[in-house]
Amino acid sequence: MNPVEIIKKKRDGHILSFDEINYFISHYVKGAIPDYQKSALLMAIYFRGLSDEETRGFVKAFISSGKQIDLSHIRKPIVDKHSTGGVGDKTSLILAPLVACFDVVVPMMSGRGLGHTGGTLDKLESIPGFNVHLSNEEFIRNLEKLGVSMIGQTDELTPADKKIYALRDVTATVESVGLITASIASKKIAEGAKGIVYDVKTGSGSTLPGYDKSKELAHNLLKTSRDFGQSAIAVLTDMNSPLGYAIGNWAEVVECIEIMNPEQKAASLSLDLLEVTLFLAGAMLKLGGKCDSIESGIKLAGEKLVSGECFRKFIEVAEMQGGNAAMIRNPGDYPEAKFEKNFTAIEKGYINKLDALAFGLAAVELGCGRKKVDDKIDYSSAIILEKKPGDEVGSGDVICRVKGETMQQVDSALKIIADGVTISKNRPDIKSKILEVIT
Amino acid sequence: MNPVEIIKKKRDGHILSFDEINYFISHYVKGAIPDYQKSALLMAIYFRGLSDEETRGFVKAFISSGKQIDLSHIRKPIVDKHSTGGVGDKTSLILAPLVACFDVVVPMMSGRGLGHTGGTLDKLESIPGFNVHLSNEEFIRNLEKLGVSMIGQTDELTPADKKIYALRDVTATVESVGLITASIASKKIAEGAKGIVYDVKTGSGSTLPGYDKSKELAHNLLKTSRDFGQSAIAVLTDMNSPLGYAIGNWAEVVECIEIMNPEQKAASLSLDLLEVTLFLAGAMLKLGGKCDSIESGIKLAGEKLVSGECFRKFIEVAEMQGGNAAMIRNPGDYPEAKFEKNFTAIEKGYINKLDALAFGLAAVELGCGRKKVDDKIDYSSAIILEKKPGDEVGSGDVICRVKGETMQQVDSALKIIADGVTISKNRPDIKSKILEVIT
Repeated sequence: MNPVEIIKKKRDGHILSFDEINYFISHYVKGAIPDYQKSALLMAIYFRGLSDEETRGFVKAFISSGKQIDLSHIRKPIVDKHSTGGVGDKTSLILAPLVACFDVVVPMMSGRGLGHTGGTLDKLESIPGFNVHLSNEEFIRNLEKLGVSMIGQTDELTPADKKIYALRDVTATVESVGLITASIASKKIAEGAKGIVYDVKTGSGSTLPGYDKSKELAHNLLKTSRDFGQSAIAVLTDMNSPLGYAIGNWAEVVECIEIMNPEQKAASLSLDLLEVTLFLAGAMLKLGGKCDSIESGIKLAGEKLVSGECFRKFIEVAEMQGGNAAMIRNPGDYPEAKFEKNFTAIEKGYINKLDALAFGLAAVELGCGRKKVDDKIDYSSAIILEKKPGDEVGSGDVICRVKGETMQQVDSALKIIADGVTISKNRPDIKSKILEVIT
Repeated sequence: MNPVEIIKKKRDGHILSFDEINYFISHYVKGAIPDYQKSALLMAIYFRGLSDEETRGFVKAFISSGKQIDLSHIRKPIVDKHSTGGVGDKTSLILAPLVACFDVVVPMMSGRGLGHTGGTLDKLESIPGFNVHLSNEEFIRNLEKLGVSMIGQTDELTPADKKIYALRDVTATVESVGLITASIASKKIAEGAKGIVYDVKTGSGSTLPGYDKSKELAHNLLKTSRDFGQSAIAVLTDMNSPLGYAIGNWAEVVECIEIMNPEQKAASLSLDLLEVTLFLAGAMLKLGGKCDSIESGIKLAGEKLVSGECFRKFIEVAEMQGGNAAMIRNPGDYPEAKFEKNFTAIEKGYINKLDALAFGLAAVELGCGRKKVDDKIDYSSAIILEKKPGDEVGSGDVICRVKGETMQQVDSALKIIADGVTISKNRPDIKSKILEVIT
């Protein structure tokens, strides 16, 4: 086969066969096809899309580039959740231990933040000692013992996807529904999950622009997962404003601790975060066969959260992976960021909009995220909202607090935030974050 | 500036500024932007096209990546011709000395064959000793002395285009009107020509498929050249069947010698080749101010061809560049290819079609052209037509002779030719090769 002819075929709108896809990907991973041919193919796919059959071909080729995790010896429901990424989206930290309390195994393999969206791995690593780099074998052992483990993609898992994802990021070929579907679904199939809940974000802070594209992605994810024998539910959730009150790695862990630990009391109850987390938990419990409907699952999940059982599981997960449990019990002992400034309202009225993209970019400026893959993360840097959309403000009231390691970073972040805050005379309608469920 | 943002901008259909284009190209040439980002941009351009302004930006950036040739001290008309490439297209070998006979300076910088199309440089190099690798300085000296020189693109001339062209070839991004325009026009402007005749081929053997695309290319070339102060004429010519009787490097030189040398007599007069060559010569003479119309230029050119003056000029050019003039005077002394087989008609009727693409691909199989950039050329290999479209054939009549260095190559070529020959009961209409003139 000839790589140029395969690129040309896709470029001209024809359907690639599995053999062509597998030839290209396997040779690319071996280094026999260079980056520049792969990136030309990726851009052609960006414009032409992938058919269902081609998407399956990519998934198969990704999976067979590495070692699949075999969890068939575990005689329990195995359910995971995947989010397409947002700002302040820390649901995974609560969901994994929460659902595991119901004897549902949660093999949670997460990613890092890149661009304006945060990543579960960075949040976990802000917990002193927490190790997210396990081998396939260690991961399986944790799942057998605790029923839950939270790690990064192992080196053995879908290495082709890992290599191609890195290339997409630097060639402006990330925002392709077909490629996103293949990348996500292949990992979730290879990690051994039998059921999967997809949290597809839509709105300014999501990775795909436009509701239609998000919905297309949701349908594609469902179809692909089911083609490979998984049960799946997709939930479209709103990502126009940050989820919860905290943005920034350790600050987000603390927000979760305040929700999970009955002995801690939060300054403000993160209703939107709770809504999304419990809804996703309900969907996971339904896929795990623990309830008949998402609604009844939400009720069950709420009880375990309030009882503190979820928090105990979270501590167990952390300890199993080397995390400092004392710090989780006493989050106030964590080092503070060096500088802090407030962002205040210049007029009275109601918070109409806190633009998720602006807050996400401001957080990157503070070192909560990365501009380049090898950028260093500042775990204490954060933006803490004091107000949420719909809240009343007076002139001079604090809308959020901005914490960073240098004053320059704090000032840059404040500038970006200023463009993302809208205050209106009238109180805006506040709608549910759950926009649509696709089953 | 950020290369990913520039790729994204083009991908999303926006117009790039000159600064963005120049940043990308200059950094790419320096190696500061990698091939994989360039190829992603090229594929995005393939889909989105280039505006006139962007095309000018590419031309400027290409030119300023190297050293432009300054011919302003030559107080004569300076006119060149460029063909978009075809099969059996050897017009340049006659045109350059022919037009130079009229005291018009012809700074002819040509390319090599790649894919199914032949290249003037390979044909020139089939003449023993002929050196096409001159520096800018040597090229200028030849033009001052003889008024004509035929060489390859110098290392100093538009190196960015050279590097990008090589990348386009292996990433399926060749067939883009905008990129083709920028590549051709930048070289023709940088080489110092003041007038330029574009021979834009259309039909199965051309590089761009479809008449509309060829016409779009012709218009773009004219517009771009004029934007940079050149006078220009574009001629759309038919490339559905090979031009003339010979395909293959030395065989094509011989076909030209037979036309130029009054002491030689050709087996068959190449009427289509003569038609195109004289038409292009007429257009060049018109741009050079030597006649009022293309038609009167054709007449003038015909006289110099018949008189043998053009042939004497050709010998001078060859000698100036190290070529063996004795071999040109006695082409029968050239080494013959080792093997030869005939392709014969299996039914009687009329030659309806000799598909240029098939004959071009068969010639590559024989080693007349290259599959990869560093493939070796066999100069004696050739396909010699005995019949042309419209000719009557009886069953068993020879349609063409196929010459190669191995019997395997000859047989492969014959197989490809078989698919390219159509015989019909009725004599097909034979039309002019000149399809349209755009001024």
